[in-house]
Amino acid sequence: MKLNVTEKIIKEHLLSGEMSAGSEIGLKIDQTLTQDATGTMVMLELEAMDLDYAKTEVSAQYVDHNLIQVDSKNPDDHLFLQSAAKRFGLYYSRPGNGVSHPVHMQRLAKPGKTLLGSDSHTCANGSMGMLAMGAGGIDVAMAIAGEPFYVKMPEVWGVKLTGELPDWVGAKDVIFELLRRHDVKGGVGKVIEYYGPGLNDLNAMDRHVIANMGAELGATGTVFPSDKEVRRFLKEQGREEDWIKLKADRGASYAIEEEINLSELEPLVAKPSSPGNVVPVSEVAGEPIYQSYIGSSANPGFLDFAMVAEIVKGKQVADGVSLDVNPTSRQMLTNLVQAGHMASLLQAGSRLHQAGCNGCIGMGQAPATGRNSLRTTPRNFPGRSGTKEDSVFLSGPEVAAASALTGVITDPRTLEMEYPKVKSPRNPKIDNNLLDEPLPPEEARKVELYKGPNIASIPEMDELPNRLEVPILLKMGNNISTDEILAGGARVLPFRSNLPEISKFTFENIDETYYDKGMDTKDLGGHALVGGFNYGQGSSREHAALAPRFLGLRIALVKDFARIHWQNLVNFGILPVTFINEEDYDKLEQGDVLELTNLREKIKQGNQFTITIKNKGEKINVRHALSGRQVDMMLHGGLINWIKERQV
Amino acid sequence: MKLNVTEKIIKEHLLSGEMSAGSEIGLKIDQTLTQDATGTMVMLELEAMDLDYAKTEVSAQYVDHNLIQVDSKNPDDHLFLQSAAKRFGLYYSRPGNGVSHPVHMQRLAKPGKTLLGSDSHTCANGSMGMLAMGAGGIDVAMAIAGEPFYVKMPEVWGVKLTGELPDWVGAKDVIFELLRRHDVKGGVGKVIEYYGPGLNDLNAMDRHVIANMGAELGATGTVFPSDKEVRRFLKEQGREEDWIKLKADRGASYAIEEEINLSELEPLVAKPSSPGNVVPVSEVAGEPIYQSYIGSSANPGFLDFAMVAEIVKGKQVADGVSLDVNPTSRQMLTNLVQAGHMASLLQAGSRLHQAGCNGCIGMGQAPATGRNSLRTTPRNFPGRSGTKEDSVFLSGPEVAAASALTGVITDPRTLEMEYPKVKSPRNPKIDNNLLDEPLPPEEARKVELYKGPNIASIPEMDELPNRLEVPILLKMGNNISTDEILAGGARVLPFRSNLPEISKFTFENIDETYYDKGMDTKDLGGHALVGGFNYGQGSSREHAALAPRFLGLRIALVKDFARIHWQNLVNFGILPVTFINEEDYDKLEQGDVLELTNLREKIKQGNQFTITIKNKGEKINVRHALSGRQVDMMLHGGLINWIKERQV
Repeated sequence: MKLNVTEKIIKEHLLSGEMSAGSEIGLKIDQTLTQDATGTMVMLELEAMDLDYAKTEVSAQYVDHNLIQVDSKNPDDHLFLQSAAKRFGLYYSRPGNGVSHPVHMQRLAKPGKTLLGSDSHTCANGSMGMLAMGAGGIDVAMAIAGEPFYVKMPEVWGVKLTGELPDWVGAKDVIFELLRRHDVKGGVGKVIEYYGPGLNDLNAMDRHVIANMGAELGATGTVFPSDKEVRRFLKEQGREEDWIKLKADRGASYAIEEEINLSELEPLVAKPSSPGNVVPVSEVAGEPIYQSYIGSSANPGFLDFAMVAEIVKGKQVADGVSLDVNPTSRQMLTNLVQAGHMASLLQAGSRLHQAGCNGCIGMGQAPATGRNSLRTTPRNFPGRSGTKEDSVFLSGPEVAAASALTGVITDPRTLEMEYPKVKSPRNPKIDNNLLDEPLPPEEARKVELYKGPNIASIPEMDELPNRLEVPILLKMGNNISTDEILAGGARVLPFRSNLPEISKFTFENIDETYYDKGMDTKDLGGHALVGGFNYGQGSSREHAALAPRFLGLRIALVKDFARIHWQNLVNFGILPVTFINEEDYDKLEQGDVLELTNLREKIKQGNQFTITIKNKGEKINVRHALSGRQVDMMLHGGLINWIKERQV
Repeated sequence: MKLNVTEKIIKEHLLSGEMSAGSEIGLKIDQTLTQDATGTMVMLELEAMDLDYAKTEVSAQYVDHNLIQVDSKNPDDHLFLQSAAKRFGLYYSRPGNGVSHPVHMQRLAKPGKTLLGSDSHTCANGSMGMLAMGAGGIDVAMAIAGEPFYVKMPEVWGVKLTGELPDWVGAKDVIFELLRRHDVKGGVGKVIEYYGPGLNDLNAMDRHVIANMGAELGATGTVFPSDKEVRRFLKEQGREEDWIKLKADRGASYAIEEEINLSELEPLVAKPSSPGNVVPVSEVAGEPIYQSYIGSSANPGFLDFAMVAEIVKGKQVADGVSLDVNPTSRQMLTNLVQAGHMASLLQAGSRLHQAGCNGCIGMGQAPATGRNSLRTTPRNFPGRSGTKEDSVFLSGPEVAAASALTGVITDPRTLEMEYPKVKSPRNPKIDNNLLDEPLPPEEARKVELYKGPNIASIPEMDELPNRLEVPILLKMGNNISTDEILAGGARVLPFRSNLPEISKFTFENIDETYYDKGMDTKDLGGHALVGGFNYGQGSSREHAALAPRFLGLRIALVKDFARIHWQNLVNFGILPVTFINEEDYDKLEQGDVLELTNLREKIKQGNQFTITIKNKGEKINVRHALSGRQVDMMLHGGLINWIKERQV
């Protein structure tokens, strides 16, 4: 059978399941990537699992999100992550080394491999002929522990690239074109695979741009072939030996087929406040801007910055525009300095920031109230910049540079200048100085985890009891989001590595007595929650399951669940069940006591069972949707206990 | 009479008073400097005064403190400051342009002039043969409005420099030596004037280091002569025409005389947690460090950074050390890039941050809990780094660089290398791009102040009534600090430009009902406060007077006042009085009503008068300490009203 690149990688890594779209497959994971915002919990999970040493080929812990050190919390987290990387045999990329995705691509990515990362833009490394996927923290922890990653077999969506990019049009415009056609849910359940003659016009970092923003289409992943350009890139990085050729078989087909003729593209812009809100730049030209923001994993390459430098060279940013330059790696910054581009950027009046994610994830460079910001970042969701009711436009570097000069959104083709021919540095510096290699196992075992005062181990969790008699602490309506369960933001997230502390914020906007009541039930058999439709929608944060579990939650009984939160509940040993008759919802009140007997047998034997409302003497019928594997996990009290037993 | 440089400048600017140490003099102010943390209130004061246009020769508004934009508050402040600078005829140094003190020195400082700044390190520009002094915000607002600055005539402390600095010893060690000898109060009431043959060994930026940290001795100012080195510096900055020669008369004397033989100095370090805690580096060598921090107005020069670059060139920072490089101006950063020094710093493994004050004022780069930080900054007061119970050592760049390489505090003389001969750039870039020139008056008058949602004008304040009948809202004990009156910190200070909002925090730790009670009295004649000894100690923040005044405070009756808070009360029209018989304190209770009649006449006629405790029928005698000028100000309802009338 003729296979495309995606199918080849999946076939090579298939541990369970059938390669038919929509059915669950288990994949061997070769590499993992964690960043600091999600990584502290992953490392605490590895500790709770008693992991001895990473079982992957490569696992890397990056520090790129929380670089603002206004007190000891972030630097304490960094030291914890460094100690955990040493303890578990991970690479550690120190603060200031750069954004995980481009650094991983430069230093560690390998064609043909699978990469799982606790960051939604992990897919960026699909540029290297990898199957690279974002996932929840505990999924990545499991992968580090050598477990398969379970995912629905994707449809492979082939995008044939033809033609050549016109001057002033770049890789960002390619992915914008796909977003313009299909919007932000167009890629759900799919891997986007690029092929065709147009690839010759896209260097490895251009492909990174396109693969990165596959996340904005909701795709499972984005895959490029490993061709001579990938070889050139690896050679430039001093790693030619890591190259293998990986192309679709001649005559391979795709479940969905599409073509983009690069020659027909023009500069595009995503308007506020969705990356799918794409229009030609001409449609928004003239809109005044407060800020032009360069950087992030969506335009991370040397040439992206060099292009801006060449456009602004010898000119001045417009009065009132802040041109914020955010290098994506220290290696690239060094090359920009040595090639003279940084001098051009500085002399034009830019503000140079440290290498990292920075404003792309709302860590600095927030725009002023009511002012437009133009950014080369991947996302412009409302408020993501840090400013409420912000107005963020997305573009490629050419539009961002042209607009910085004029003070209004500008079609770069209207500048009175030749299209700059920017070139890669001739002898680029390779800089591993802030990327620490893993310790060998015998050294790693001697390392103690360093925990600052704000870092607490995950408490042990007990297995599922055979009998529960639990009060309903909250009865909620429809569409309860994970933000309502446990908020994000600057007030709460600093406690992301401290479950006992972050738990204090649980359900605070629904019932501020929940924390105290939960703590009361914790050692007395726990409690239950009741909800309506779409329970747990929104952010995927694991803390929204972990914190209630810490406070004694054993069972969540709702009309239906949002998918990711359901998965998180299962992972942390909270039994998620739904009503068989939705009217039973009305029979339940806060304070009612639910009785569940012979529970362990019941969930093994079938997916329906009966719960008694003890104080009312009534019974209601519920169902669970656990697979056999998940039932086993639930009986153990969650994934951490389950894997802990398997590690021994 | 033979005059020293300080006396020459004072004589030239004397508007009132006698030049005898300790007596109040009024000085003409030629230049002012405000930064963003203090500047927003200064600009709001100028607005409240109805200022038409700055009456100084040069006034500059810098943005260097609050560069972390995690939401819209800081960028909104920046836009407000920019609009205010345009409106009132000020220079505006945009965010990213650099730290006020070195930028002012490069672009605007002039020998022989007076400079008043709302920043304690304003004294740094004494390096240029100026009398440069830090002051409160409203003092600077008054100076911008053309009013004299009132200060006690200082003693002039002559420090004769002889000899030559040995290799590995720098300007920082000169000021450390003075701190070692005299500690942090040694300069109170004095101007430190340097002279002698050792000056030949100190370039203009070296002198900036020494003048800057005069603040750490508590000195009123630091003065260097304007000699051929100042001329060279101005020429390098393209401003040779701004140079005048200014030296002490031959045979001039000093109230205090002292000598430092540069040849005898060695590398020094200030231990935690005081800049006066100075020891030879050998005494702390071997102490492990987590961080080596380069930058700030205490070591701001090109050569300071170039020295570090040359020491670390081709080497690597020690494992676990964060070498944080904080450029002090964009101009200097550009020169460092072009001279190749930035490449050396980056390749050695440093983290490059944006140009600004940054971690020196706790805005980023905080150290981890329990770890040592070594910094070239001027201050290591407890917690200033942002980390509670921090452990910050201060040093010059040579020690900081050597220690970054070894991971422990290191005497640079023990490095196996030649002392680097660093040189100024041959054709240094001069960069005014982010320094906006003042608008001419006719243009300025057309500018509207831009106020984001977090910026509120200072409400109008009424004049002192002739009769007060006011309840005592709080009766407090001794040593009430301005932190207890109105806290600083990240929770409160974001509202520094919004008096109605920041007022909500007033006295919250003493009586959380104070705000509501105050608001109730506000339109009913106001209220009184009673306190013990040393009322208003601590930080000089003006808000601790402004906010209670906004809530209706008219009179503060205490045993005695801390000096600066007393001044702030007077400035904002709150009558500060003390008991003549301290036992009367015991007669007063919270809720008592004080009656003051014929008040306007009484405070004019003498400094003692009687207050009736209306509900008790008792009388107590009090005194005020206002000068004639201050009585006039008080009758007007404070300095803003007083100057407003004079502007017309």
